[in-house]
Amino acid sequence: MTDAIEETNALRPKFGPDGLIVAAATDRASGRLLMIAWMNAEALQKTIDTGEAWYWSRSRGELWRKGATSGHTQKVVALRVDCDQDAVELVVEQKGPACHTGRRSCFYRTVKKGDDGSMLVFEE
Amino acid sequence: MTDAIEETNALRPKFGPDGLIVAAATDRASGRLLMIAWMNAEALQKTIDTGEAWYWSRSRGELWRKGATSGHTQKVVALRVDCDQDAVELVVEQKGPACHTGRRSCFYRTVKKGDDGSMLVFEE
Repeated sequence: MTDAIEETNALRPKFGPDGLIVAAATDRASGRLLMIAWMNAEALQKTIDTGEAWYWSRSRGELWRKGATSGHTQKVVALRVDCDQDAVELVVEQKGPACHTGRRSCFYRTVKKGDDGSMLVFEE
Repeated sequence: MTDAIEETNALRPKFGPDGLIVAAATDRASGRLLMIAWMNAEALQKTIDTGEAWYWSRSRGELWRKGATSGHTQKVVALRVDCDQDAVELVVEQKGPACHTGRRSCFYRTVKKGDDGSMLVFEE
């Protein structure tokens, strides 16, 4: 069955060739997309076990508890997988800003199309 | 400057080694995360140029206008990049369901931790 993965109640996350799965954190209160990061199997399991968001830092090559140094932790109130189980959503209670720049969300710039190419406009 | 990418108003999307960038579509009306997919440079440019969501299908290995066959198109009302420009958010007006299973969002199952492992619970 091609739709087995979509209809199963078994958790079968599909990690990529690099061992990672993409993870989107959304804000429980506003519903807004806060950030997109990556998890390896251990980060996903730690998130399930602890109820706090753990990721894999591709730049630092290490497991990372969100907010471990900044204090801007994420309490996970729901963890969802998508239809083909190659992406997860963390609905979180975000303590402080989600973005390392101090902004609430990492998605604070909008693309505007101009006559000579595209520019970014800051929203906050 | 290490923070240049975070504060620039130049669009400089960072595509991965596979030439792709992750793209999250969120619903304009509800704010909810609808789906996560991938774009290559051409898909991103077509999305900017047309105001409709274009992606790169990793499974089919082809450019893909969302809804081209299903009719479930996405009108892009805002296109955002994240702090380090390796992810984009499309705020969309979704025609019909976003998910190919017919559900509004691809994230319709929640992970529940049990005594002998995790299970998925259907939300809709």
